[in-house]
Amino acid sequence: MNILRINTRTRTYTREPVPENWERLGGRGLVARILVDEVEATCDPLGPKNKLIFAPGLLVGHMLSSCDRISVGGKSPLTGGVKEANAGGRTGLALAHLGVKALILEDRPEDNEWQVIVLSAAGVRFEPAGDLVGLGVYAAAAELLARYGKEVAIALIGPGGEMGLSAAGVQNVDRDGVPSRIAARGGLGALMGSKRVKAIVIDPSGGQKPPIAHPEAFRAAQKAFNKALQEHPQTHTYHDYGTAAMTNMCNHFGGLPTRNFSAGSFEGAEQISGEHLRETILARGGEGETSHACMRGCMIQCSNVFPDPDGKARVSPIEYETIGLMGSNLGIDDLDAVARLNQAVNDLGLDSIEIGAALGVAAEAGLMDFGDGARALELVDEIRRGTPLGRILGHGAATTGKVLGVERIPAVKGQAISAYDPRAIKGTGVTYATSPQGADHTSGLTIRAKVDHTDPKGQAELSRSAQINMAGYDTLGACLFAGFGFAAAPETIRDLLNARYGWDVGADILQALGRESLKLEREFNRRAGFTPAHDRLPEWMTREPLPPTGAVFDVPEEDLDSVFNW
Amino acid sequence: MNILRINTRTRTYTREPVPENWERLGGRGLVARILVDEVEATCDPLGPKNKLIFAPGLLVGHMLSSCDRISVGGKSPLTGGVKEANAGGRTGLALAHLGVKALILEDRPEDNEWQVIVLSAAGVRFEPAGDLVGLGVYAAAAELLARYGKEVAIALIGPGGEMGLSAAGVQNVDRDGVPSRIAARGGLGALMGSKRVKAIVIDPSGGQKPPIAHPEAFRAAQKAFNKALQEHPQTHTYHDYGTAAMTNMCNHFGGLPTRNFSAGSFEGAEQISGEHLRETILARGGEGETSHACMRGCMIQCSNVFPDPDGKARVSPIEYETIGLMGSNLGIDDLDAVARLNQAVNDLGLDSIEIGAALGVAAEAGLMDFGDGARALELVDEIRRGTPLGRILGHGAATTGKVLGVERIPAVKGQAISAYDPRAIKGTGVTYATSPQGADHTSGLTIRAKVDHTDPKGQAELSRSAQINMAGYDTLGACLFAGFGFAAAPETIRDLLNARYGWDVGADILQALGRESLKLEREFNRRAGFTPAHDRLPEWMTREPLPPTGAVFDVPEEDLDSVFNW
Repeated sequence: MNILRINTRTRTYTREPVPENWERLGGRGLVARILVDEVEATCDPLGPKNKLIFAPGLLVGHMLSSCDRISVGGKSPLTGGVKEANAGGRTGLALAHLGVKALILEDRPEDNEWQVIVLSAAGVRFEPAGDLVGLGVYAAAAELLARYGKEVAIALIGPGGEMGLSAAGVQNVDRDGVPSRIAARGGLGALMGSKRVKAIVIDPSGGQKPPIAHPEAFRAAQKAFNKALQEHPQTHTYHDYGTAAMTNMCNHFGGLPTRNFSAGSFEGAEQISGEHLRETILARGGEGETSHACMRGCMIQCSNVFPDPDGKARVSPIEYETIGLMGSNLGIDDLDAVARLNQAVNDLGLDSIEIGAALGVAAEAGLMDFGDGARALELVDEIRRGTPLGRILGHGAATTGKVLGVERIPAVKGQAISAYDPRAIKGTGVTYATSPQGADHTSGLTIRAKVDHTDPKGQAELSRSAQINMAGYDTLGACLFAGFGFAAAPETIRDLLNARYGWDVGADILQALGRESLKLEREFNRRAGFTPAHDRLPEWMTREPLPPTGAVFDVPEEDLDSVFNW
Repeated sequence: MNILRINTRTRTYTREPVPENWERLGGRGLVARILVDEVEATCDPLGPKNKLIFAPGLLVGHMLSSCDRISVGGKSPLTGGVKEANAGGRTGLALAHLGVKALILEDRPEDNEWQVIVLSAAGVRFEPAGDLVGLGVYAAAAELLARYGKEVAIALIGPGGEMGLSAAGVQNVDRDGVPSRIAARGGLGALMGSKRVKAIVIDPSGGQKPPIAHPEAFRAAQKAFNKALQEHPQTHTYHDYGTAAMTNMCNHFGGLPTRNFSAGSFEGAEQISGEHLRETILARGGEGETSHACMRGCMIQCSNVFPDPDGKARVSPIEYETIGLMGSNLGIDDLDAVARLNQAVNDLGLDSIEIGAALGVAAEAGLMDFGDGARALELVDEIRRGTPLGRILGHGAATTGKVLGVERIPAVKGQAISAYDPRAIKGTGVTYATSPQGADHTSGLTIRAKVDHTDPKGQAELSRSAQINMAGYDTLGACLFAGFGFAAAPETIRDLLNARYGWDVGADILQALGRESLKLEREFNRRAGFTPAHDRLPEWMTREPLPPTGAVFDVPEEDLDSVFNW
């Protein structure tokens, strides 16, 4: 494995050995390490000093179930702090097969010419993006697959990233060539756009699986992991219902974002539930699929393909977060409306959480009626057309609220809160407040813990543990849901790493990786100017009771400030 | 003197004795003290926890030349940090005559009803603002003067403050009843609007001058100050040309903002110079005035009344900052166009610096051609109409640049840089970078120092000294230009304070007050989450040479971080 460093201004590249202090990191932890080592934390996120990093996790490359994720990172155009967003699809596996431990894009072109960067075993080519510029990700990916072959991996941006919008992510093609596995959060698509890179095409055909130090031990550990994962009941729930299973659960706890976070339960929840999603897909048939793998080798297959009433595929996947933010949060109880919105923001290469939250704020400002899916789609089209209103929305919930004068902005560090209202699920609220990433459930979701989620006591400890574990999984390249298997057989993480790399790490390696990643991220943020004053939820959430529980966010500030005292 | 505390939610008030640690402060220093003592630094600037403070300076109340200024303050909706903006006009004098050392507006109404708050010797009345809501400040002030008598002082907001725009200031009526003395910077008009206060009317008729401990000593000190001020050559320059005298000077140094800070000298500078301004006013006659006092008793009278070609007053005053930001910065070399823009933003109650900078950024984004005054006026009308584009512009340069995707944003801590390009006038650049107020020339202008302004060496010391002095003057309630007199006869500050209050302060009192104010401001900002990472100029200014000097901003970061080590 080595480091592939590309200068986007000079259009040159180097392959470098892996520095010693980067060797035992991957994915999210490696992104943080590189940012601390190489990027001036106060730099302009869209300026030449920022870098865009792609780093497969430590376990990537072997089609371990749900463990081939790619971490994308840089200084966030949305939060101004550290940013890692990860995704499934082909990108992680393909990079690992080309021996790339991290791909680092530097500088930015002075000629403003858009490029496609093509990686293969032969090296790196820089090709004019030509008429791909301006295309949505679906059309652009189809053209790239036609141009470079159906088996290539692609990471690309849509018009949102080209426009420099802070809600733009980096889309990756999935197992089937569909470009909807998005490293969504924090504006990394805008960062890629600032470097005038429309797409990175990775042709793994001349590559190979990364070497394994102890193949037999690896196979044994893999078998134990597979067994644990296969036997976990959540694996089957996610297989059948996908993340959308969360709709009813979160609604039950009174934490389902509803009409711009003004309520925590939604009268139309059943219509947008995982159960209804599954029934709809089954009833419509056609191209619909109730379970679908985003990566090769995944046993969970939590993804889905949602068809229109005529059976033609509309979008894949519909995730719970999109249902929460573009469904209940907009007062929309119609899965077809959610699917159309989802597909439209996917095609723009935008984060459906951030845009859903922005639309909720816009609705509160009077720009749409809650429940009006057609109007919501018009507003998304404003983004595509680059109108002033569209650009406001495309920068996300915080900018939308500031510009339009809305107080009820659901965001922390400028990043929209995801589909768990922190007043009802307070441990996740602690995560939103304190995560170096800004509000983000994947940084430490606590909803599965057997606690009273509205009791402020003990939530900081709960969040700490979740944040450490999640940072660990993100460093491994493991999906959140691979965690069900790892949690049931924690020794398999140690065994897999030791077998893969010939290391001798201990049973606490997941937490050790998580702690190291968080420490690096906090160091970057400290240099960028973040303090405990930024580790706070919006003031209105501490004051405004959330129906039906009537909860406010009342975890004491001392508790928030204690999260990283370990 | 006492503290008048008004609760805008309950519409009640109390008069309280002055706490001991507030006694020896006034104006800017007292604003900072109150914020540190009473306002949670992390609060939502437009939420119920923020407070809007009016504090006359320590010397206010006696019609000392240029020393009756009012400081307005709170947590800034624009920067998120400490904010004090001061203005001439009647407000300071009237409050002092009612014995008010500080007026503190708290909380905000739940019923959202707009009010006029009327202060008089009899107490405080809360009256419905009625049809004043939505009126520009000129019409609203005229109506208020008709309603409450021609001699009242008024502090009011325009539509910009009502809309919650971050560029909104608080306008004050001048000696002649014209509402154009604006506490402009940092969005204090939005803060006033969040409390649903359209205007504060102050009827000083039953009040009296504050008591003087040693009247004879006061008169002697006043005489010495007057003499020093009268004899200073700048007093006469400012009398004849106003602040517009700076146009040619700044152009000469290559620091005149031109076409969104892309150049430092402007081919049309002569057309917008102080000399041309004076000639135009003299030639047109009519209601024009080349010198005009904003406060009673002012000997300098640096203000002006600019007439249209037909001799009818268009706007008063045209200041250099407006010429720099709405003239050369927009490529406009026509004083009539500048005057129309100035009057339009005044009427909206907006900061002409912030809006001028925002329009420059908008021009770079392609929304207007540089030089097109008619189009600039249309864009200001977008603000009045509250369109999405208008709201973008009304939040100032940083928001405009972020939303429209412009890198060349002239702002620090979210506040627009004023009319001295920091690459050519580096000491002022240090002030912009490090002032707790955000970019603001009045926090420490260095252009009059006899140094090479493009040499990075020594600029931190120059800025430090200027920042301390200016914070001192702002705490006294003294105009920048009263400083010419005080600098020539520094002992008069000590003598005036000791005579007025019966104190025994020493000759370094100006610096002592300045240091204390800055220390308090930095403490508030520290609690609000500011660090040295925020004390930086925009990255592009460190990289992009400014024609014609070719200067970049190259004061070392260690120098910036040393400014407050005294």
